[in-house]
Amino acid sequence: MLIVQKYGGTSVANTERIKAVARRVVRTADEGHRVVVVVSAMAGETDNLIRLAHEVSPNPGEREMDLLLSSGERVTTALTAMAVQALGKKAIALTGRQMGIITEPVHTKARIERIEADRAKRALDEGYIVVVAGFQGITESDEVTTLGRGGSDLTAVAIAAALKADLCEIYTDVDGVYTTDPNIVPEARKLDKISYEEMLELASLGAKVLQTRSVEFAMKYNVPVVVRSSFNDNPGTLVTKEDKEMEKVVVSGVAYDKNQSKITIKAVPDRPGIAARLFKAIADANIVVDMIVQNVSSDGRATDISFTVAKTDSNKALSITEAIARELGASGVDLREDIAKVSIVGVGMRTHSGVAAKMFETLARHGINIMAISTSEIKVSCLIEAKYTELAVRVLHDAFELAKAEGEK
Amino acid sequence: MLIVQKYGGTSVANTERIKAVARRVVRTADEGHRVVVVVSAMAGETDNLIRLAHEVSPNPGEREMDLLLSSGERVTTALTAMAVQALGKKAIALTGRQMGIITEPVHTKARIERIEADRAKRALDEGYIVVVAGFQGITESDEVTTLGRGGSDLTAVAIAAALKADLCEIYTDVDGVYTTDPNIVPEARKLDKISYEEMLELASLGAKVLQTRSVEFAMKYNVPVVVRSSFNDNPGTLVTKEDKEMEKVVVSGVAYDKNQSKITIKAVPDRPGIAARLFKAIADANIVVDMIVQNVSSDGRATDISFTVAKTDSNKALSITEAIARELGASGVDLREDIAKVSIVGVGMRTHSGVAAKMFETLARHGINIMAISTSEIKVSCLIEAKYTELAVRVLHDAFELAKAEGEK
Repeated sequence: MLIVQKYGGTSVANTERIKAVARRVVRTADEGHRVVVVVSAMAGETDNLIRLAHEVSPNPGEREMDLLLSSGERVTTALTAMAVQALGKKAIALTGRQMGIITEPVHTKARIERIEADRAKRALDEGYIVVVAGFQGITESDEVTTLGRGGSDLTAVAIAAALKADLCEIYTDVDGVYTTDPNIVPEARKLDKISYEEMLELASLGAKVLQTRSVEFAMKYNVPVVVRSSFNDNPGTLVTKEDKEMEKVVVSGVAYDKNQSKITIKAVPDRPGIAARLFKAIADANIVVDMIVQNVSSDGRATDISFTVAKTDSNKALSITEAIARELGASGVDLREDIAKVSIVGVGMRTHSGVAAKMFETLARHGINIMAISTSEIKVSCLIEAKYTELAVRVLHDAFELAKAEGEK
Repeated sequence: MLIVQKYGGTSVANTERIKAVARRVVRTADEGHRVVVVVSAMAGETDNLIRLAHEVSPNPGEREMDLLLSSGERVTTALTAMAVQALGKKAIALTGRQMGIITEPVHTKARIERIEADRAKRALDEGYIVVVAGFQGITESDEVTTLGRGGSDLTAVAIAAALKADLCEIYTDVDGVYTTDPNIVPEARKLDKISYEEMLELASLGAKVLQTRSVEFAMKYNVPVVVRSSFNDNPGTLVTKEDKEMEKVVVSGVAYDKNQSKITIKAVPDRPGIAARLFKAIADANIVVDMIVQNVSSDGRATDISFTVAKTDSNKALSITEAIARELGASGVDLREDIAKVSIVGVGMRTHSGVAAKMFETLARHGINIMAISTSEIKVSCLIEAKYTELAVRVLHDAFELAKAEGEK
């Protein structure tokens, strides 16, 4: 098999751990597999570099920021290749450029356009273990780019797709994907298998195991991904195409997200085009809106519009909304940061009814008020007061019997 | 003017110092000059990376070592460009590759083959301050290389030559080139001007201000180099072509080198080809021999051969010499590490006689025994016991009246 293994920052946090990574890589090669290894920067290093940048400039240029940040993966790539060589195997370290990772000409969050993997293929054919710097690429015009937070996952999945790898293993500091956050629900169960679609909902909802874009990429190119721990030999969670077996599971997991804010524009005169005007301005500022609720007032002449954005965007979104509120003659704008989104996810919802109702009923039974609801085919999300987050996660996990494996229910 | 400024590791040791560098760069630009800035890695960073490499591998691969080490300059280059931008100037950071520094395909100590400076020229024409990563280059086949210790000096001088710069300023933590080590002789005087040839002798003799290869390069392409401190505004020392004025100065400086060992092969039968056999074997091991002395024994049938090598090479040189001693039937091999080389340097020696005699006499008067002598047109070196080094430097500095400027003598 051709296996791509990605090791995150905690897995290469120091030279002892890098040597442990090398041993695992060599073990995989000794089992007869060809191996490509993708590494992140040492845990903390990227934050350290960002801190240095802010010490020299209040507003560091993005082009130079990419050059700066790309150095972190360069270090771990070289060290990991050296550690593999020290175990007697042929290994070659490749930067994003040497791996042929061509991105669009955008800094700090570039998308991969294509991978020119000839050099890596040649090295694999010559018996090398190929160690690649995650998170980075290069544009057609020779500029260094980075792929944004969690970008090393994307590097690994994209390389797996380009090389038609049999498996992409994402090594991290957790054993896999859980039915919910084990810090909140100790009985949370590790899933053996999950569909791309579910993983996508869980990832974008705040289960930080796999970067969202990398799951989309894996789904698009049908790359089987295993999420597992680099600190033990547990089998991890396979993220793959939806199959019959998965459809039997109504709810696979409960996710939560405390990183959102709710903005409400109050008593806007209810005319056509109001919402369009508002959300176009927000979108133009590159702010992603998640949930939207519109309540028409009792007399039908004015309306409240609420929406949620990432907390990091809330000040920017607030000032845009305030400007538009003045323009439209709304009575005011309100920002709430003490909110959270709780979601249940499962491909089985497509064929099972009554799931949303059970969720609402469970929250209501515990006195948790729902401020907004959004749904997709495989997900139901409720906006609640932040202080109820843990309670909501626990009671939902319990209501859908997630601690039990399918056979036990 | 077009000025290349190189800042060493202590000048960019932290973000405060990088901001000070940025202010100096901007001041130079504000004086109407076009500026290219070459930076080293932060002081200590290269050693830190080497330590990490040795933690993961007893014998790290050179290709991966170059990839690893090149990250250090990448960081300071990006930070320096950001700091210049923060002062309101256009600045662009270029890696060795982006600067077009093409080297031979040799790792850890590559020679620069040529510089494809089109991109840098374009940036300068567009009004950018160009910040370049020192110490690194790239081969024709896209491999990252480094230029060896002190390689950032070479980067700066080579860029100055390629861009036909008017001046190359090497900023370091000392004020310039002194008549000798001020730690040994407090009255040591800073030289205003020194010839390339003298600088070369001083540098290779252990005055660590400028890397030897960069002086050779500057001499070859006639690049005027100024060595000065980044911590004050003192004018520094100009390293330039020899001129009439310099020839008046008989001795410009006294240098010493404690990093050599002396190996003696004793009572070798005195046959033709013995020395050739020995020194070919040493050269084949890539060991540079400095001084050589051969004493024919009184009966004329056996000879002692002594030579000096860098201390780092002494074990390797010793075992080669021992093998050859057995082969040739010599009586034994002796290693002495408690030796030092003291030298006087000056272009004026070419036209003045009696300089060497005065040196020998001065050392003799202070009871310092000379073990070996080597001379060039502009230098006389004596091998002495290491414990006399400071004394020898002081008495020679005094004998040649180096504390006084030329006019005062």
